Amino acid sequence: MSERTEIASLGEFGLIEHLTRENETRNVNTILSIGDDAAVIDTFGKQMVVTTDMLVEGVHFDLMYTPLKHLGYKAVIVNLSDIYAMNAEPTQITLSIAVSNRFSVEALDEFYDGVNLACERYGVDLVGGDTTSSQKGFVISVTAIGEVEENKFVTRSGAKENDLICVTGDLGASYLGLLLMEREKQIYVENPNIQPNFENHTYIIERLLKPEARRKMIAWFKENNLTPTSMIDISDGLSSELLHICKQSEVGCTIYEEKLPVHEQTKEGAAKFGIAATTCALNGGEDYELLFTISPDDFEKVKECELLNIIGHITKPEDGKVLITNGNNRIELSAQGWNHLKNK
Amino acid sequence: MSERTEIASLGEFGLIEHLTRENETRNVNTILSIGDDAAVIDTFGKQMVVTTDMLVEGVHFDLMYTPLKHLGYKAVIVNLSDIYAMNAEPTQITLSIAVSNRFSVEALDEFYDGVNLACERYGVDLVGGDTTSSQKGFVISVTAIGEVEENKFVTRSGAKENDLICVTGDLGASYLGLLLMEREKQIYVENPNIQPNFENHTYIIERLLKPEARRKMIAWFKENNLTPTSMIDISDGLSSELLHICKQSEVGCTIYEEKLPVHEQTKEGAAKFGIAATTCALNGGEDYELLFTISPDDFEKVKECELLNIIGHITKPEDGKVLITNGNNRIELSAQGWNHLKNK
Repeated sequence: MSERTEIASLGEFGLIEHLTRENETRNVNTILSIGDDAAVIDTFGKQMVVTTDMLVEGVHFDLMYTPLKHLGYKAVIVNLSDIYAMNAEPTQITLSIAVSNRFSVEALDEFYDGVNLACERYGVDLVGGDTTSSQKGFVISVTAIGEVEENKFVTRSGAKENDLICVTGDLGASYLGLLLMEREKQIYVENPNIQPNFENHTYIIERLLKPEARRKMIAWFKENNLTPTSMIDISDGLSSELLHICKQSEVGCTIYEEKLPVHEQTKEGAAKFGIAATTCALNGGEDYELLFTISPDDFEKVKECELLNIIGHITKPEDGKVLITNGNNRIELSAQGWNHLKNK
Repeated sequence: MSERTEIASLGEFGLIEHLTRENETRNVNTILSIGDDAAVIDTFGKQMVVTTDMLVEGVHFDLMYTPLKHLGYKAVIVNLSDIYAMNAEPTQITLSIAVSNRFSVEALDEFYDGVNLACERYGVDLVGGDTTSSQKGFVISVTAIGEVEENKFVTRSGAKENDLICVTGDLGASYLGLLLMEREKQIYVENPNIQPNFENHTYIIERLLKPEARRKMIAWFKENNLTPTSMIDISDGLSSELLHICKQSEVGCTIYEEKLPVHEQTKEGAAKFGIAATTCALNGGEDYELLFTISPDDFEKVKECELLNIIGHITKPEDGKVLITNGNNRIELSAQGWNHLKNK
């Protein structure tokens, strides 16, 4: 070990690519392995989907403003979101936690209340896990398993020129919720007598602390017999996820600022913080919305659907990855999403 | 939250029981959920098995004497061992890690070398995971998935009176390896000029740092058309695991000190540390051997099998859980295995 490469020099995705570059597939029932939101495993008839995520105190959440029940709920949701992003239905999860003795049983009960609530609402079984101690902090690891009809799963690599780019819900709210909580935390740390005022901000705070996964969109696809050509969930920001789709599909894209769905409270919050709401929508992250592409032939089906907004279309690779602003400027999209490893 | 119950007051198993007491099963394909080595999920034809384990630096391993490659290997093996303990074949794993910037890419490469080697040797696919930063230390979470022919999986709850109790390999070595490494670490900390001497201890050290899972035993069961009545892998010590089988099968047991398989180096090591080798075999833990029960009708099949030793038999519940010593004394078995939460 004569040389030393800093993890930060690769970035999170670079690191994963690096670490898994020699990963081989050995079993015929492994249909899709590393490189998408989840892995697909044939289960003879239906196919099984599996995904996993780790949440680390001080990196992914701050217990000063994150209620444990919300944290438990969110830890499940972020994994279910990955399952839905495969066009699959989640069926089981496993949950492992490492906690220091700073936590009481009652505190862990609150956490599990949130986990159980998410499982109940989304019809998922908690089927295993591990509970251990940590020297410091709280670490959560969830693995979610889902099922999908044979070869109906949707990857990031199927987008074609002229496909429509769609996104569920609205974007940027969670990021503004985070900015708000961080600011109130600072104020509180400096003067504990000042109580935070969250009036008019309930939506963006809820989006941060208690996100939901887009189950209804997947159900709608099934009902309307529509299969997206590509799909991903938005955890690192619209821009970053769209670049994943373009890279893995070998295409370009054009999206329109005026089409980006942004909630009224997000706009107000952005104005207060003096940042553009569009920047939040593009790069905020933790939205857990679904970003997907559909064939233009399916336009008639989706045009009345209230679950989604069409924000642009797929182009030739040489046309680049572009945002057309309200002022009609062309801006090259870049990934400025979360990079936990770089921040440390 | 007026009261506070310390986690240590419940113990690890008590805590898991407590946290999952309201866990419900919602999907018809969840055949077996929390409470065994792994969960079973029907995959229409074959059944899928899933298990997960978390390893925390300073709790489960000490990087001062654990090479990262060995750690990667072991992190996979401990999960595969759980899959085999269900009488299933592992097919996929997911791996999540949280690391501080104390680690270089080269260090993580070493870790992944070990992971990949284990996957290769055991024919398993690494199909997903998550890589994130930690504020302190190294946390590893592995989920393993396996398959088993319909309803051929083996739980902890099927042991019947007069069944024979069998164990693979030998016991107690890993625990002595740990004692040895801890002692050498102390000596080194006090005087870095004294080089550790591991001569004659290679076996017990390897058992600690680079354990194997008992794949051959499961293959043998298949070849010989034998299904154990109950099975568990030994991670917390023979005594603790046997008590799990007795509790979940509602039976008692009698095992014989003279029948316990103990390696020559384990005996020598135990003598040096002034502890009984039998104590190591009963309570040491981290053996990753398989403990199982078979019907007495299958005695003819197993009596020539070199992979296992018969160490006793299952009794009526009222006969207790008993070790018959070489001096013909009856000793009640107790669980003194690892209890990470209590130790903190």
